[in-house]
Amino acid sequence: MTSKALTHAQNNRSLYLDWLKALLAIPSISAQREHAADVRRAAEWLLDKMQAIGLQKTAIYPTPGHPIVYGEWLEAGPQAPTVLIYGHYDVQPPDPLDEWETPPFEPTIRGDDIFARGATDDKGQLLTHLAAVDALLRAEGALPVNVKFFIEGEEEIGGEHLDDFIAAHTDLLAADCGLISDTAIAAPDQPVIVYGLRGLVYFEVTVRSAEHDLHSGIYGGAIHNPLNALAAIIAAMHDETGRITIPGFYEDVLPLTESERVTLEQIPDTYLEETGARKLWGEPQFTARERTTARPSFDVHGIVGGYTAEGQKTVIPARATAKMSLRLAPNQDPLKAAEQFTRHIQNLAPDTVTVTVERKSYGYPALIDRDDPAIVAAANAYRAAFGNQPLFRREGGSIPVVATLQRMLNLPVAMMGFGLPDDRLHAPNEKFHLPNFYRGIEASIHFLREYARLTTR
Amino acid sequence: MTSKALTHAQNNRSLYLDWLKALLAIPSISAQREHAADVRRAAEWLLDKMQAIGLQKTAIYPTPGHPIVYGEWLEAGPQAPTVLIYGHYDVQPPDPLDEWETPPFEPTIRGDDIFARGATDDKGQLLTHLAAVDALLRAEGALPVNVKFFIEGEEEIGGEHLDDFIAAHTDLLAADCGLISDTAIAAPDQPVIVYGLRGLVYFEVTVRSAEHDLHSGIYGGAIHNPLNALAAIIAAMHDETGRITIPGFYEDVLPLTESERVTLEQIPDTYLEETGARKLWGEPQFTARERTTARPSFDVHGIVGGYTAEGQKTVIPARATAKMSLRLAPNQDPLKAAEQFTRHIQNLAPDTVTVTVERKSYGYPALIDRDDPAIVAAANAYRAAFGNQPLFRREGGSIPVVATLQRMLNLPVAMMGFGLPDDRLHAPNEKFHLPNFYRGIEASIHFLREYARLTTR
Repeated sequence: MTSKALTHAQNNRSLYLDWLKALLAIPSISAQREHAADVRRAAEWLLDKMQAIGLQKTAIYPTPGHPIVYGEWLEAGPQAPTVLIYGHYDVQPPDPLDEWETPPFEPTIRGDDIFARGATDDKGQLLTHLAAVDALLRAEGALPVNVKFFIEGEEEIGGEHLDDFIAAHTDLLAADCGLISDTAIAAPDQPVIVYGLRGLVYFEVTVRSAEHDLHSGIYGGAIHNPLNALAAIIAAMHDETGRITIPGFYEDVLPLTESERVTLEQIPDTYLEETGARKLWGEPQFTARERTTARPSFDVHGIVGGYTAEGQKTVIPARATAKMSLRLAPNQDPLKAAEQFTRHIQNLAPDTVTVTVERKSYGYPALIDRDDPAIVAAANAYRAAFGNQPLFRREGGSIPVVATLQRMLNLPVAMMGFGLPDDRLHAPNEKFHLPNFYRGIEASIHFLREYARLTTR
Repeated sequence: MTSKALTHAQNNRSLYLDWLKALLAIPSISAQREHAADVRRAAEWLLDKMQAIGLQKTAIYPTPGHPIVYGEWLEAGPQAPTVLIYGHYDVQPPDPLDEWETPPFEPTIRGDDIFARGATDDKGQLLTHLAAVDALLRAEGALPVNVKFFIEGEEEIGGEHLDDFIAAHTDLLAADCGLISDTAIAAPDQPVIVYGLRGLVYFEVTVRSAEHDLHSGIYGGAIHNPLNALAAIIAAMHDETGRITIPGFYEDVLPLTESERVTLEQIPDTYLEETGARKLWGEPQFTARERTTARPSFDVHGIVGGYTAEGQKTVIPARATAKMSLRLAPNQDPLKAAEQFTRHIQNLAPDTVTVTVERKSYGYPALIDRDDPAIVAAANAYRAAFGNQPLFRREGGSIPVVATLQRMLNLPVAMMGFGLPDDRLHAPNEKFHLPNFYRGIEASIHFLREYARLTTR
C-alpha cells in the first residue's frame, strides 16, 4: 500500500532529519532551573513548526511549571474520529557528562544512529507524527481523521501540572483515542505494542542526626551517622529474594494471566546483553521481564550528604537524603503506595535519628484493552511500515499520561513506539535509530488511515 | 611563676593574633588539587615566620605530595633535652559552604572566638608554640631546651608521605620527646592530656552492576541497583547493637582497665549538648566516651553515584562508591584491619554485582605512658597556664603521627591540646577560643621550662 503522503515522506527524509537535529540541539532539561529558558525555547520551536505545517489553534499554554504546546487539524469533520497525539519535548539531565562520546546537545550521526539527549525520549519519536501530518497535508491536502497535538514539557519531572491542565481543558482535548510514541520495540524490524505500563511514585527520604556535621574521630561510635542509618533503612526495603518489604504493598498487584505470561515470553530476553550486568537480580519466581513489567520495584537514584568530592574527609554528616522511587504494577494506586511506604520507613527508622519522607511526583500504572480499534490500527500500521506483526507486551517504565488520558478523558491509548532496547534513554550516549525514525513517520501515516477505516461504521 | 617571656607573650597578644589571622586566610585545603598553590603558600608563610623568629636550618622539604616545613633552635646544647614539635598547616575542605556564617577563609572574631576553617585544627594550636619560642627568644634570648619544629601539609588527607620523610630524616628529627597540640580540652578552664588515640583506615568501596546507567522503569526489578546493593553492604557492617560485624575485628582491642574507666568517667559527657542529636547510639555495654575512644567505629562519609542534583531522575547508576572509614582502638593494626574489612566486604557482596575495595590512608592508634616526663611537664604547664590540674583521657580522633613518632623515632609524645569540644573541627563554622590561644602560648613556655627541669639529672 503506497500513497502520495508516503512517497512525500520518503522524498523528504533529510528535511525531517533537519527538524530532529534542530529540536535535539535545544537542552530542554526540565529538572534544572537554569535550563528553564531552553525548555521554553523547545516549546516555541514546536509552536513554529505546527504553524508551518498548517495546524490550527496553535498555542503555548502556560502552566505553573513548563508550558504545554497545542495544535489541531479538525477539517476531517465531526463525523470523522479524532486522534489525540501526546508527546513530551523535555529531556532528562545528561549527567554523567564525561561519559558522552559526543556532547549531549550536539546531535551527531554515527552509522544509522543519531546520538543526543532526548533522541529517542521523546523528541525523535514525537516528531514522527508531526512529520506524518506534514507529509499528508503537503502531498494530499488533508488528513483521514481529525488530529490534536498536545506536547508537554514536564514528563521527565513527573508531569506535575499535566493533570490540572487536562482537567481544565477536557473539551479542547476531547478525542476518540490517544496515540503516543514513547516506548521501545524489540528490534529494528520487530515492532511491539505496549498495553501495560507501570506507575511511579518518587520520594526524597532525609535522615537527620546531629545539628551540624561532626568529626568521625570525636563522635564515631556515639552519634548515629545518618548515612549509615539511611543505608540500613534502604537495605531493609528488600528481603533476601528481592521482594519489597512494605506491609500490604502487593495486595492490589494484578496477577498475570497465563496467556499474558506466554505473550511476554515471546519477547527476547536481552537484559544481560543490553546492560553488561553479570547476573540478573530479583524475585526468583518471576522472569526478569515479568519483574520489570508486572511487578513493582524499588530503586535508589542518588544519595546526598557528607563529602563526595575528591580526596578524604572524615565527617559524620548532619543529614543524608536519598532520592528513591517505587515503580508500581498495574492496579496499584500511587497515593496508597506512598502512604504504605511512608509508614514503613517511619517504622524502620531507629529512635537515634529523625526521618522525613517527602513524596514527589507520582503517576498511575495503566492496562489497555488489546481489542480496541486504536490498538488494532497500531498493529496494522506497524505491519505496513515495518513488514512484521507486532508483539504485545507490558512495559516497565511509567508514562503517567496514559493512565491520565484513560481516567480523565476516557480514551484508549495506542502506544506505538519506535525506540530500541539499547537506546540508552536516561543514560549517556542516548540515541535514536534513524531507519526507525523514517519508518515511524510512515507508520504514523498508516495509523491515521487505519484508524479512520476501523472506526467508520 | 612569671618570667620575661610570659610577660612578653602577654604584651604581644595582638601581634600573635595577627599571625593567626594571616595563616587562617590561606585556604590550604590539602584534599583539593586546585588548592595546591595555597597549600604551598601556607608552607612558605611558616618558613618566613620561622626565619623571622630566629630558627635555624629552616627549610621546606618537598614530598611527592605537599611539603614539610622544618626549623630548629639547638643552642641549649647537646646536654639539654630536645623537644620535637609537630603540627599541620593543611585544613579540611570547608563544605558545606552555605552553612558558614562568615566565609571560611576570612577569619572573623565574634565574642571570644575566631571563626575560620583550620582555626583550631590545627593552625591556631600549632602557632601557640611558634609564638612561645618567639616570646622566649625575644624576651630572654634563649630557650631552656633544644627545639625542632616539623610542620606537615597532608594531615587531613592521611599524611601519606610523612612516614617516608621521617624514615629518611631520623637524625634530623632525633629528639627526647614529641609535643603536639591538636586535641581538645574539656572546657576553657579544664585542660586535658590525651594519652590514647584511635587509629584510622579509610576506604573507597565501589559497587558496579551494569556497564552504563540504566532507566529504572525498564530495568528496575531485573538488574541489581548498585546504590541498593551498597546500602545493604553498609547496613550489614553493624549488628543491631552497633557492634561491627567484621570477623575477628575486635581480637586485638585492649580492654580498658578499671582505673582507666574511672578516669574516663571524670570527663563530663556532653555529646548530646554538643551535637543536638536526639539520642546516643552504639554498643550499650560501653559509655559513649568509651565507645568513641577505646572502641573501634565504622562510618560512611559520603556516597557518590546516581543523580544528586536538583529534581528527579529515575536512574539505576552503573556504579556507586562510598567513602568510609574504620576508627581503630589502641593495639589494633590498620593493615590487619584493612585486610579483615576487605575480606568481609567481599563476603557480603552478592554475586549480582562486582565490588572493589580501595584502601586509602591509614594510621596507627597510640597509647602513651602517663608517667613519662613529657606528660608530667605537660601537666605542670597546664596547671601553671590554666590554673587547673588536667584530666587524662583517651581521644577518639586519629593523629597517626603520634604512633609514628613512637614507632619510628622512639619518642613519647605529649598531646597538650587547646581546642574545645564545640570548636566544630571538620564542620562549618570551625572556631578557636582566643583565651585558649593566649593561654596555649603560655603553656608552651611553661612546658619547655618544665621539661628541661624534669629531665635534668
